[in-house]
Amino acid sequence: MNRETLVQEIKNKASFLCVGLDTDIKKIPTHLLGESDPVFAFNKSIIDATKEHCVSYKINTAFYEALGSKGWESMERTLNYIPSNIFTIADAKRGDIGNTSDMYARAFFETLHFDAVTLAPYMGKDSIEPFFKYKNKWGIVLALTSNSGSQDYEQQNIGNEKLYERVIKNTCEIGNASNLMFVVGATKPQELGAIRKLVPEHFFLVPGVGAQGGSLSDVCEHGMNKDCGLLINASRSIIYASNGLDFAEKAKEEAQKMNGEMKKILQQQGII
Amino acid sequence: MNRETLVQEIKNKASFLCVGLDTDIKKIPTHLLGESDPVFAFNKSIIDATKEHCVSYKINTAFYEALGSKGWESMERTLNYIPSNIFTIADAKRGDIGNTSDMYARAFFETLHFDAVTLAPYMGKDSIEPFFKYKNKWGIVLALTSNSGSQDYEQQNIGNEKLYERVIKNTCEIGNASNLMFVVGATKPQELGAIRKLVPEHFFLVPGVGAQGGSLSDVCEHGMNKDCGLLINASRSIIYASNGLDFAEKAKEEAQKMNGEMKKILQQQGII
Repeated sequence: MNRETLVQEIKNKASFLCVGLDTDIKKIPTHLLGESDPVFAFNKSIIDATKEHCVSYKINTAFYEALGSKGWESMERTLNYIPSNIFTIADAKRGDIGNTSDMYARAFFETLHFDAVTLAPYMGKDSIEPFFKYKNKWGIVLALTSNSGSQDYEQQNIGNEKLYERVIKNTCEIGNASNLMFVVGATKPQELGAIRKLVPEHFFLVPGVGAQGGSLSDVCEHGMNKDCGLLINASRSIIYASNGLDFAEKAKEEAQKMNGEMKKILQQQGII
Repeated sequence: MNRETLVQEIKNKASFLCVGLDTDIKKIPTHLLGESDPVFAFNKSIIDATKEHCVSYKINTAFYEALGSKGWESMERTLNYIPSNIFTIADAKRGDIGNTSDMYARAFFETLHFDAVTLAPYMGKDSIEPFFKYKNKWGIVLALTSNSGSQDYEQQNIGNEKLYERVIKNTCEIGNASNLMFVVGATKPQELGAIRKLVPEHFFLVPGVGAQGGSLSDVCEHGMNKDCGLLINASRSIIYASNGLDFAEKAKEEAQKMNGEMKKILQQQGII
């Protein structure tokens, strides 16, 4: 999906919500366990219930890999079920030497048809470069994450800047605002504002609203740009809103609620 | 596999060779393409041909993911075929927030039964900690890699030390010499010597000998310890030694040659 389409979808739906499909077979309602593919059955219901209220789904590959090749099949089925006007993210945090990253890019962009994949930059620019060779595909690079461990390296100084700032600057040499996003945690709204100044145009994928304590209004105040520029991820607060027969209905209510809050903010900001 | 068994296997075989199964379906001999699972057929022949000369196989997950769920099946078959006295590594470079890393650990240690998985430390200590909760399982953390991009962050100074040194020190707080190894590229033998001083006991997984230009004798001179302390990975130079009907035979010759060189070094160092 290209940037123009993504921005248009945000305006159409008055939403910049990304629903995280961190589907743990140990947490889904027990009545689904008799299905031939319980994880897909769960995801299908969640997608049906939330697709009007979100512009993106993020598939956390770890939860599928935990089930082995069967889990990859569930991931493939889920991805194929997502409507084509919704931006799809493989939250895979890949990154390796060049010829290996070529294979990861092939995995997520050619074999599977994700729009985007999250990338871990530790090994340097050349380790993520192969993901930026594809038209209308995106690399979403870890910058400042929402976990406490972000202070171990990301927030340490290299020269006169933080490591995550160096990562952002370096990565802007290999990608642009139409194929590169950054992961910036919602738990650090002040830093989010500083990062917005550094890269005014780029989209940010923002985890940590809700369960991890970040506030939607704080994130928008510091991180929004003229095209919105944000995809706010919510996973557990939506997909596990209920553990009963009404799980999809409750997920819809949660997504609808966030959609409503987002609509107000987009209106206040004059984006819609 | 525990450390004692690994060291004993190194002594028994007079080898510290790790064969990298970076199996690309586009590069395997064409006569295998008629098999129901060509990647597994290739790996099976390579394992049969090299298992006497190596102590470890490293499965590069990217090459399997590039084939989707079928690729994961090939990976599962390959892992199950490797004899139990050989140390198995998922070269997956995973790392994420805690509850997601829990799932990756489940994927590689419980669903698949790898002995070890490579880890990317960018997100901090808490992002790799879940991998160290398993008995006789190993995390192999990226420290100083063999690619040119290692200068972008790994070799930059944080305070008065390099980022990779900080990673090593921090990671030693959550793992020990019996469950934690480090990836250190063969292309930087001087730095390898400095890292050996920092962590005298730990094993290093060393890529970059052969195709990437690192020398076996240089690596051993600077990196060996009293238990050997090295797993030297070779991938393309062994598995693609020939592209014809004799591919397994030629792979065996290459592995045997490296085994011979390693035996001499182990004898010179008084390890066997």
